[in-house]
Formats: sequence, C-alpha cells, structure tokens
Amino acid sequence: MAIITLTTDMGLKDHYVAAVKGAIWTQYPEARIVDVSHLIKPFDSGQAAFVLRQAYPEFPRGTIHIIGVNPEADGQTPHLVVRHDGHFFIGADNGIFSLLFEGMPHEAFEITMKLDDDHVAFPTRSVFVKVACHLARGGTMDVIGRKVARVKELIGFQPAVDPTSIRGKVLYVDSYGNLVTNVRKHLFDEVGKGRTFRIGFGHRDDDITRLHGTYGDVPNGERLAFFNATGLLEIAVNKGVEGSGGGAARLFGVYQDDTVRIEFGEWR
Amino acid sequence: MAIITLTTDMGLKDHYVAAVKGAIWTQYPEARIVDVSHLIKPFDSGQAAFVLRQAYPEFPRGTIHIIGVNPEADGQTPHLVVRHDGHFFIGADNGIFSLLFEGMPHEAFEITMKLDDDHVAFPTRSVFVKVACHLARGGTMDVIGRKVARVKELIGFQPAVDPTSIRGKVLYVDSYGNLVTNVRKHLFDEVGKGRTFRIGFGHRDDDITRLHGTYGDVPNGERLAFFNATGLLEIAVNKGVEGSGGGAARLFGVYQDDTVRIEFGEWR
Amino acid sequence: MAIITLTTDMGLKDHYVAAVKGAIWTQYPEARIVDVSHLIKPFDSGQAAFVLRQAYPEFPRGTIHIIGVNPEADGQTPHLVVRHDGHFFIGADNGIFSLLFEGMPHEAFEITMKLDDDHVAFPTRSVFVKVACHLARGGTMDVIGRKVARVKELIGFQPAVDPTSIRGKVLYVDSYGNLVTNVRKHLFDEVGKGRTFRIGFGHRDDDITRLHGTYGDVPNGERLAFFNATGLLEIAVNKGVEGSGGGAARLFGVYQDDTVRIEFGEWR
Repeated sequence: MAIITLTTDMGLKDHYVAAVKGAIWTQYPEARIVDVSHLIKPFDSGQAAFVLRQAYPEFPRGTIHIIGVNPEADGQTPHLVVRHDGHFFIGADNGIFSLLFEGMPHEAFEITMKLDDDHVAFPTRSVFVKVACHLARGGTMDVIGRKVARVKELIGFQPAVDPTSIRGKVLYVDSYGNLVTNVRKHLFDEVGKGRTFRIGFGHRDDDITRLHGTYGDVPNGERLAFFNATGLLEIAVNKGVEGSGGGAARLFGVYQDDTVRIEFGEWR
Repeated sequence: MAIITLTTDMGLKDHYVAAVKGAIWTQYPEARIVDVSHLIKPFDSGQAAFVLRQAYPEFPRGTIHIIGVNPEADGQTPHLVVRHDGHFFIGADNGIFSLLFEGMPHEAFEITMKLDDDHVAFPTRSVFVKVACHLARGGTMDVIGRKVARVKELIGFQPAVDPTSIRGKVLYVDSYGNLVTNVRKHLFDEVGKGRTFRIGFGHRDDDITRLHGTYGDVPNGERLAFFNATGLLEIAVNKGVEGSGGGAARLFGVYQDDTVRIEFGEWR
Repeated sequence: MAIITLTTDMGLKDHYVAAVKGAIWTQYPEARIVDVSHLIKPFDSGQAAFVLRQAYPEFPRGTIHIIGVNPEADGQTPHLVVRHDGHFFIGADNGIFSLLFEGMPHEAFEITMKLDDDHVAFPTRSVFVKVACHLARGGTMDVIGRKVARVKELIGFQPAVDPTSIRGKVLYVDSYGNLVTNVRKHLFDEVGKGRTFRIGFGHRDDDITRLHGTYGDVPNGERLAFFNATGLLEIAVNKGVEGSGGGAARLFGVYQDDTVRIEFGEWR
C-alpha cells in the first residue's frame, strides 16, 4: 500500500491530474495517491521544491513523490529518481533536487528504463508514473537506470551571514499572506547568541524585535515573527487574510524573493 | 477503515493540507481521507460550520471530522472532541460546535492528551491528527481528555418568527451564486399553515410567491425558491452562473448575512 | 475495489462534492474515488465531455464515471448509464454522451431504478451515486433500467475537410493557455498526404508551418504545434503561462470555439 504524492503546476480544472491518477491505478491498483499541490506557479521549480520540502517529512518512509513541474528531459536534463531519508523523488534534473534537502541527496539514479509508448510532451504521466509504480511494487533501482554521482545544483537559497546580521529572503507567500523565509532557527540562534535583534522586511517602522510562539500570541491584525512548524522564520499578521488586504504580504508590500534582514546587537 | 474528513481554510496551493494527510497516514495508514473543503473563507467559523453541517450527514456513522478553521487553543478556548449522531468532530471551542447541530451536541470532551512535539502554530496537523488517529484506531474518549458539560454558544443563527412572518438570513452563497437561507421546511410549514406567501430578499419586484421542486422547473434565467437537499430554503436562478453575472447573488445584489423575509397572508 | 470518477461543475469551496463522496462511501465503502475535475465551466456539457474524454482512457476497464454537469432529468432528458470500451458513464442524456466517443456508445440504459428518497435538485448525489454503487458492487444493468437504442446527438464537433484544407476549432484552453483543437493526427495525415502546410489561428504572421514533438523543442516563449498525448493538434507557447499573459490563448487572442485552419499545398 505504497503512497504516491503529486506536486505539479497542472492546475485543477484540466484532465491532466486525473490522467496521471488513472495511469497510476491502472499500473498499481493498491496505490494511495495524495495531492501535495497542483497550484505551483507554472514552471516555478523553486516553489515546487519549497512546497514539497515542507510536506514530505510528514509522510512515512517509502513514500514516492512525483514532481510534475518542468518535467521534460533534454540532453542536459535527465530524468532522475532520488532517494533521500527513505523517501523517493521522481523528476527532471533541472536543479530542483538541490533545493529539496540540506546538502546533496543520499542517492540519485538516471532513468533509462525503456518506455515504448511514452509521449514526450507528458512525461509526468508516462515516465514518472511507470517508475513510481515500479518502486511501489518493491522494484529495485538498478532496473530503472544507472547511479549518478550528483544532481544539478541551484544556488541562491542560503542566507548570507556575518557576525552581526543574517540576510535572508522570502521563500514563499502562503495563501494567508504569511511570509515564510529561508532563515532557520538553528542559524538564528547560532548567529544571534541570545542578543537583542531587529527583523526588517520593509518600512523601518514595521521592524519586529521579538519572537512569539504562534499567531494568537498577538492581537488580531498585529504583526509577529515566529519559527513555524517546519523550523523557518515566518512573518505574519494574526488573522490577516490575503484576499481582503490584511495578509502580511499585501500589508507590508513584501513578496516572494524579497529580502529579510536580521540585525543583532545590544541596542533595544 | 475509518473515514477522516477535513474542513479548513488552508487553501489548495500550499503544503498545509498535504502535511495533515501525511501525518494521518503516518499514524494510521488505513485511513480514508476526504476533503470537505479547504476554501472556507479564512477565519470564518460560521462558514466552516455551514459547509460541514451540510456534508457530514452523508457520511457513515463513526466518521471523524477535523475542523481546521481557527484551530488555536487559548485560555478560554480548549480543543474539543464532540460526539453527535455517531460522528466525531475535532476542533477548537470557538463557538463552531454550537452551529453544527440543532441544539447542543450529545457529548463533548476537552482534549488533554499529552502531546510533546506539537507545534502551537499548527494544531490541525499535530493535536487534531493525533486525536483523530486515536479515535480511528478505536481508542476511547477517556484517554483523550475529560468530559465537559457544554460547548461555547454563538447566537444569531435562528430566524425570527411571528404569526405572519419569518425573518431569516442568507447563510451561504454557493459557487453558482445560489442563496442558501436559514429557513427550514418544517418552520415554513408550521408558521405558514398553508397560507399564501411572499418571499422577499431585495427589490419588491423580485419577490417570489410560490415554491418549486428544483432548478429546471422554471425557464433558464428565471428565479425560483425551493427547499434544497438539506431542507433549507434556497433562492436561485436556473442555469445562473456566478462568474458571468447570472447567479442569484449577483443578479439580486444579495449576499451572505443579508435578510430574507417571508410574509404569510390571504392576499395573492 | 471499483474506481468511481467525478466530473462536475460544483467547484471546490462548497459541500456538494463531499456530500457525493460521503454518499458513495456510505453505500460502497470499498470505492476508490477520484476527481477528474470540479471546475468545469458551469452548465458547459461540451467542456465536461472534452475533459472526461481526455482522462477516461487512462483508467482501467470497469471504472465508473459520474458526470455531474447539467445532471437534471426531464421529460425529454432521461438519466442514462452508458457502457463503452469497458467503462461506465452515468449522466443525463443532454447530448454529452455523443461527445464522449467517436461514434455511438456501445450500449445505453435508461435509469428507471426506483429511488424513494431522491431530492430532484441534486441527482448527482442521489440517483447517480446509487447507480454507481450498484455497478461497483457488480450489479447488473437490467436492474437499473431498460436498454435504449441511442443517445441524444449534438453536432458541430467535427472539423470540415476539403482536398486542400481542414477547418477545425479550439475545443479547450487549458490552464497553461494551450489551445487544444479537434484536429486528430490521422485526419491531418489523411488530408495532408505529406504536403507542406500552414496552420492558421489568428494573425497571418503567427501561422505555423511545421510540427514539433513537444514544448521543449522550441525556445522559451516561442509558439509551436504538435499532436499531444491524446492525439489532438495543440498550439502552445513553450513555458507560456496563462496568468502572466504568456500563454498561447492570451498571446494570440484565441479562445474556446475559435477557428483553426490548416491549408495544405506545395508552397513553402
């Protein structure tokens, strides 16, 4: 009863997601299929990596994750199966695998498995589903392809650090308008060493100088910063709603890829 | 093979819903998980209650319903498991449990089960999932917490009645633009006693003076009123579509919480 | 472990889809339920037919497909179960069954099965679910109703052909803005006989004079034409995104039902 998850930019109105699920159940009827997201911004591998990175540790080991964003192979971009932490990830080696983990994944295999009837324009449904079902049935990696030494690396994801500051960025704006940054708690503690701090992300007046535990620790409509359930620094507005103009992103005019600065010092 | 349903305002683009599902399958692999809605208006407990109230009776007894809207506990707001009609409901006691049923629920338990690694900012994934999986495995209520005498009550949901009229309101506007009101058939019959009536909700010219069985009983584009599949008075336009300006809500300028008046009399 | 698919215009925010799923699991707990789409344009049977037609062949034989778009029966529109290619389709005979297949379906049955407690305004949940669960349990067609000779036909779906051209139309614009036409590969080959061609769909400058295999065969932002995974001529822009103005539909100002002309000749 393997679990297969889907992370794509296919949207929810078209037939593509159902075609993928039908193909899975045709080849492996026992699969439990779960949507991670189909609303990844089209062709945004970084966003796909972020969303899947937050979600996958919640699944049991052995889960197979299909990444249907920029899934096309070409001369420089093989299809890969990556094994990490007991999970399997299937996608094109366009850099996404370097964004899914801290450091390199444990193992990677180029997919060379023969697939006669694959349509090149829809590899998620053809190549990835076949490989996923092979793995779900307990198939071995050596049938799929050959081990590769490394995956393509994308950079720019790590915060810049000096003795008195961290310069990170907004990785993701969620549907509440919360700003999720790339600053992890252990980095914050390591650099900060317990000093006072200012978190800046827009107008100086909006700087935040303390951490809370959760949204409800401040009154409705107030801003706050805290380390969220996946260990990332998050800037939010309690009961702020993106749609109605009250979410942090809209309220502060801060969006994906914008800079967040943390300055440590003895001032208060 | 217990069923666990999810009603949240988390939206469909982020990783939150997948994190909840992964946590469920990690703790209870046999769960059948079903989305009631993830597009509840953010922080709108009333809307969450309405949507779940319409859906839950369709599920078999023993189904466990997680309510991930305003899920945070605080000093005045414990986390509860409520048992009613053979169904289980898990959420924060912010008033939502008084909106889910006619009258008080059969039983309610405050969740006191120890949960070491819970992140306070994401109780739906931590607290609610653990309790849901405990119940799904056939666990008993006394392990979860202690019985409480009552749930927090919210008012304003019931129509006002006098001998010649009912004054209700629009509970919900669905995605077709249909106006679902809080006027139930038995109340309508009890007050109306078979008399003629006018249903008013906007301009007097739009008043409706008879009931139909379903949308198709009037020509396309015509307004109608009928008691819907869940027994609530609904005002609609046959083949009206919200997006293109033809749904009842947009056509009549009537929205959630607006008043609907029914006057009974001998006039025609 | 039968599979039941759902194709509806119910949207994702309301309780309707969950009510249908709850009813299925109440009557047939072993069902595997899969969403084809709930974002069909309201009341658009043609779009529902297109989306389901693309998706259903991916599912195993024996799969049961519920069509919840314009599901209401009336004097001229019976509820049908259609059997084709080993699949079952359940819906109202409003013309949709003539759009799902090449030619007439193999068999069709009018649903006459007695259903006491059905609410006429929600036949997808009442009539269609009961019939689907009957079939899922291996029930026979003769219990459901009586065989009918044919289904209602809608026309206008086939391209017009002469010795030097094909005049088709855009069947569907997907969420990337790709234009999917009703021109099939075998028709293109049969009429074209290997001659050069021009595919026209807007300004003459945008005409396309060759076919590619997939999106990535042209640079990002370039237009292309190819036969997609379901054998239909598709006009697209590599890495074009509808939302940001770069999808083919928006870029060329071409939408659903617009004409696509293919002229064959010896010119180049």
